[in-house]
Amino acid sequence: MRTGVHRIPMNSPDDLSGLERLVTRGELDPREIVAVIGKTEGNGCVNDFTRGFSTAAFSAYLSNALNIDLSEVKGRVAFVMSGGTEGVLSPHATVFTRSPAASPQGQAPGLAIGVAATREFLPEEIGTTTEVAEVARAVKAAMADARIDREQDVHFVQVKCPLLTSERIIEAAGRGKHVVVDDTYKSMGYSRGASALGVAVALGEVLSDLVTADRIAHDWALYSNVASASAGIELMNCEIILLGNSRESMSDFVVGHDIMKDAVDLGAVLGALRSAGLEFAQLPDTDQLKHVLNVFAKAEASPSGYVRGRRTTMLTDSDINHTRHARAVVGGIIAAVVGDPMVYVSGGAEHQGPAGGGPVAAIVRHG
Amino acid sequence: MRTGVHRIPMNSPDDLSGLERLVTRGELDPREIVAVIGKTEGNGCVNDFTRGFSTAAFSAYLSNALNIDLSEVKGRVAFVMSGGTEGVLSPHATVFTRSPAASPQGQAPGLAIGVAATREFLPEEIGTTTEVAEVARAVKAAMADARIDREQDVHFVQVKCPLLTSERIIEAAGRGKHVVVDDTYKSMGYSRGASALGVAVALGEVLSDLVTADRIAHDWALYSNVASASAGIELMNCEIILLGNSRESMSDFVVGHDIMKDAVDLGAVLGALRSAGLEFAQLPDTDQLKHVLNVFAKAEASPSGYVRGRRTTMLTDSDINHTRHARAVVGGIIAAVVGDPMVYVSGGAEHQGPAGGGPVAAIVRHG
Amino acid sequence: MRTGVHRIPMNSPDDLSGLERLVTRGELDPREIVAVIGKTEGNGCVNDFTRGFSTAAFSAYLSNALNIDLSEVKGRVAFVMSGGTEGVLSPHATVFTRSPAASPQGQAPGLAIGVAATREFLPEEIGTTTEVAEVARAVKAAMADARIDREQDVHFVQVKCPLLTSERIIEAAGRGKHVVVDDTYKSMGYSRGASALGVAVALGEVLSDLVTADRIAHDWALYSNVASASAGIELMNCEIILLGNSRESMSDFVVGHDIMKDAVDLGAVLGALRSAGLEFAQLPDTDQLKHVLNVFAKAEASPSGYVRGRRTTMLTDSDINHTRHARAVVGGIIAAVVGDPMVYVSGGAEHQGPAGGGPVAAIVRHG
Amino acid sequence: MRTGVHRIPMNSPDDLSGLERLVTRGELDPREIVAVIGKTEGNGCVNDFTRGFSTAAFSAYLSNALNIDLSEVKGRVAFVMSGGTEGVLSPHATVFTRSPAASPQGQAPGLAIGVAATREFLPEEIGTTTEVAEVARAVKAAMADARIDREQDVHFVQVKCPLLTSERIIEAAGRGKHVVVDDTYKSMGYSRGASALGVAVALGEVLSDLVTADRIAHDWALYSNVASASAGIELMNCEIILLGNSRESMSDFVVGHDIMKDAVDLGAVLGALRSAGLEFAQLPDTDQLKHVLNVFAKAEASPSGYVRGRRTTMLTDSDINHTRHARAVVGGIIAAVVGDPMVYVSGGAEHQGPAGGGPVAAIVRHG
Repeated sequence: MRTGVHRIPMNSPDDLSGLERLVTRGELDPREIVAVIGKTEGNGCVNDFTRGFSTAAFSAYLSNALNIDLSEVKGRVAFVMSGGTEGVLSPHATVFTRSPAASPQGQAPGLAIGVAATREFLPEEIGTTTEVAEVARAVKAAMADARIDREQDVHFVQVKCPLLTSERIIEAAGRGKHVVVDDTYKSMGYSRGASALGVAVALGEVLSDLVTADRIAHDWALYSNVASASAGIELMNCEIILLGNSRESMSDFVVGHDIMKDAVDLGAVLGALRSAGLEFAQLPDTDQLKHVLNVFAKAEASPSGYVRGRRTTMLTDSDINHTRHARAVVGGIIAAVVGDPMVYVSGGAEHQGPAGGGPVAAIVRHG
Repeated sequence: MRTGVHRIPMNSPDDLSGLERLVTRGELDPREIVAVIGKTEGNGCVNDFTRGFSTAAFSAYLSNALNIDLSEVKGRVAFVMSGGTEGVLSPHATVFTRSPAASPQGQAPGLAIGVAATREFLPEEIGTTTEVAEVARAVKAAMADARIDREQDVHFVQVKCPLLTSERIIEAAGRGKHVVVDDTYKSMGYSRGASALGVAVALGEVLSDLVTADRIAHDWALYSNVASASAGIELMNCEIILLGNSRESMSDFVVGHDIMKDAVDLGAVLGALRSAGLEFAQLPDTDQLKHVLNVFAKAEASPSGYVRGRRTTMLTDSDINHTRHARAVVGGIIAAVVGDPMVYVSGGAEHQGPAGGGPVAAIVRHG
Repeated sequence: MRTGVHRIPMNSPDDLSGLERLVTRGELDPREIVAVIGKTEGNGCVNDFTRGFSTAAFSAYLSNALNIDLSEVKGRVAFVMSGGTEGVLSPHATVFTRSPAASPQGQAPGLAIGVAATREFLPEEIGTTTEVAEVARAVKAAMADARIDREQDVHFVQVKCPLLTSERIIEAAGRGKHVVVDDTYKSMGYSRGASALGVAVALGEVLSDLVTADRIAHDWALYSNVASASAGIELMNCEIILLGNSRESMSDFVVGHDIMKDAVDLGAVLGALRSAGLEFAQLPDTDQLKHVLNVFAKAEASPSGYVRGRRTTMLTDSDINHTRHARAVVGGIIAAVVGDPMVYVSGGAEHQGPAGGGPVAAIVRHG
Repeated sequence: MRTGVHRIPMNSPDDLSGLERLVTRGELDPREIVAVIGKTEGNGCVNDFTRGFSTAAFSAYLSNALNIDLSEVKGRVAFVMSGGTEGVLSPHATVFTRSPAASPQGQAPGLAIGVAATREFLPEEIGTTTEVAEVARAVKAAMADARIDREQDVHFVQVKCPLLTSERIIEAAGRGKHVVVDDTYKSMGYSRGASALGVAVALGEVLSDLVTADRIAHDWALYSNVASASAGIELMNCEIILLGNSRESMSDFVVGHDIMKDAVDLGAVLGALRSAGLEFAQLPDTDQLKHVLNVFAKAEASPSGYVRGRRTTMLTDSDINHTRHARAVVGGIIAAVVGDPMVYVSGGAEHQGPAGGGPVAAIVRHG
């Protein structure tokens, strides 16, 4: 197996010119694409349609390029579009490819990717232990798909999960069912939280018995170190893209990760780069940074309202949602460290890292 | 002369409990207060009344504490309240005191502060060469007030300047006068720009002949390295607070500065700390950082829309003003470096540092 | 008893020039002021400091004008500042005065005002049945204060109530107490809802036995026809301003009300004008409208997301809070009917009128 | 010629289920579609991608349904998607069809539609007299297309026009060209203004000699009574959809219009209904309103900041763009009059009606 990865700038949610250029030049074979992790320029909250627009554009492109039906594209490529490019964050897509290849004996582990999906959920299942269990099962499937045996070789598990809308809540109520929360914006947190706990259960980070309904989106002591969940209006199931290193994957890249303890944890960003093989003293230099393909992080406002003991106003700002504040901060810090604002930061880190913090992963080119 | 400085957390724009505590403990004599630089939790744009609210609260407190009229407070203490605590930024005030003291011969230069104010402007003068000239004159007065002779000893010049409102534009029109721009939000940029060019002219950074009307808020090649201008609805003149080092000032602190070339210029933040006397290899450690009293920076969205060659969406985001994005980013980076989100970042850096960048100053305790 | 009322435009939250003008002209005696209902230009949500700023400005003015302490002002005048002047709504204050006067026998009932306040609440009491009971008790006191015996003579009960902040939630948690909701923005709805149910219980609109904890902010079948609750960060108790008609009050004005069944209920606005004595066929004309002193209404996004069977996007808009949308709509409709945008519309009508609707009251000058 | 029109609710920008239903039932032949005027749920400002997403979805549907290329759809159907469903406004599309039919002699004039498009503009042409002239030419072509001879038979001219982005401004600058305004949000106003003046010139409402560069987006005394312009990021030319009545068109509908003098001009909404043939005394009743197919209006914040002599805060609100405030207000008033929130209100009425007002048109079913 050979795993490739490309980071492509986008001028709008439906801009595929960068992808087309790579394909035209022969640098990327569209038939090998297995996953796309995008950062689109909507508000990243409930009424962000840039995620769906971008997915539709990629799907139409691939349907055409591969001469297959749209429905077939959906089964073949996992799309995770995360909205919100606050601050300096720059819209882009990271495209993963996979192709069969004989793995030479004794090679060093290389970047490997696995994809999987859960069944579609009913509105009343979103944010519940049902979502936890289904995601856990799918993560196991994604590990197998990536040919990764050991949990410690998994460094980033991106989950795209559904959210509640007024229509979905009404539909459920019409069947006499209650949803976990009536607030559509808050439903994103429940769904992300349940998805992250699903990852944690699958990887043995949290015992499944501990994950009861009342702890989802409440007990922040339970969390995954590698889960990254992003909610979107455009789907009703969960899609999983799992990144790790595997001896069975040939790749120019390695992935590593660290945990940001809070939103300003500069050390963890450096730690993720080191975990992925970059060697430097205190700060990497310009030449070293050329090896960095992309950095992926989760950001959230500390539920306490405090960061390093200081009062912040993210949670009491009724004009800007706190996930938007958090993405701007973490995106700025990562951009400052790697010298590039085209990085992936997704908001809302419920059960993804400790409260107020979040996982950060880096993909770095070998030597 | 002895110069003191205190950084005080605030729980709301009118929270003076922190100041009261210092006064009660005898750590701060309210009669010695000469300037307050505040960071309040409004939107930092046109309709941000937290600045005026905070100024009113401080003024009422001092009127009461010093048993003087409100109008007398205004003549005695310079208030610069900058709105906007996006991201992790934490509302606070930096309070400067000054008291007579014999300066021992041969002492090292210490932090010195000077204050001055221009006359009130007419709406049609805001953002014009008239504002430039009046600010330049006031900066010279502030240098004298701070007992600083040499321009290179000036490290931060905070200007609070007025903005246009619908009422002010109509009032001017009623007298047959045109204002520089009809858009109230944009008037903030013109006024900040003219103020910053006034600082640049006063300090010899830009030749006054070059500052013509058409270049204000347009020719970004003209800029000051130490100006920080902040517009507010609550005043019609400019107030100047100038920080530098002077042999005639005894102080536990030294001020230094550097220039951020763009919004993610990590090196300049480190440079400002070094300029103020902090010594470290690549990154300061926790013990070294305890010496940092506060960091002051200006932030702005790059007028080109690009940062490090990457497209950003700050200027095309119609939901969140670009100054808010920029403050979140720069605030996050400084907080990550100094390990403390209670720092001062003000938005809109027109003619304050190069396009997309801005000055950054640090006040550091001796040895 | 004589009851007066003045509607005063404001140019900013702390603009008292209109009030000063009335006082200077002898049209209003500041010693007779008993209540101020203001519409200030903040976002009307959690971090709206215009309400506190305006209250502080009025308080300082009255402290000075009446030569009394600030704390004494608080005990003497009830302030309800409601934030949010979305759309055409125009910032203003309605100032109520009361003075002793012998009531001639057999006069027609005139506008009467009563004020009262609850004790301060603990954070964990906000939005609970405790708040309901305390408000009910205070409403009874306000009726007595207004010399109104019959519930049907009460036409508008404005309650200013507290909300939760991160600090208050943490303070409660520190004492081992849980608050009703962790989301600071949502806490406004709980507090408004509990206050409105307190009014409903006091006026016999809802049986107190029905008001259980699980129904607050959930069972919209329970509501008051005259309650108007507005939450603010600047207080921890509830202040009540009750308006009705009383034979014991001499006044040039009469108050009436109707119920908007939804946000576009034009007929109810007309109904309120008629209830207050304005006579017209289908629409009032310009001359008739000159008798209208002010209109007071509550607005909210329909919890179902639907208005007249059509999907609206107020609840799924993550950029603008739904209360802001709702105020813009209802404010526009009332302004269109009465030909004046300087009317009072407050957002968040939980248990104030039917779901998606709200009370609307009018004060109209006699004959 | 026969002209049909359908109003179709949409559950998301790409929801075509309503259209599909009409087609399946045989009520609408997709081959006859000539124009779609949509109201989508984005912010209606620069970064509103719901317009492009919706256009893409309709185009893909028609490409598939008619078995033609996407590029052919573009040449065949005019799409005008206007973003922004603030307040009660409900996302929907109005779909116009046209089919050949012999017109009986002496029939009453019926609704007629004409479509046309200009060439693509360069960034530096947007908002200039070039845009005015090209739109004027296209409006003449659209009149001919609608078989309308007399200007007074034209009641609504919807123009979709381009806007400036950071990329477009840079591209122009790279060729040494200046754009009319650097602010991307403000460019929408220039482009809408130039388009509206193009309509005014074509219909003889304004003499073309009067339309000089300095008057575009400045001299509000020049305006059209029937122009409705909407700017979008997704096109670089102008598309025109012209509605009027023609003896050569058989239709169940008639169109009429009136002019709102300000944002709360209730009388003009009633006037538009009357102009389209609805007969009623002061207010239409429920049965009469069943004949209303849709109402189309333009809304804007008064450039003076005042409405009916009262200060409004739309122009000084830095959290919500003034076009969003204005749409909420006018949408609410129209919904209140016609009892239906699924109406079309588009923001930014530069040169479309008098300053602060705008055209309002109604399509009403015959007798």
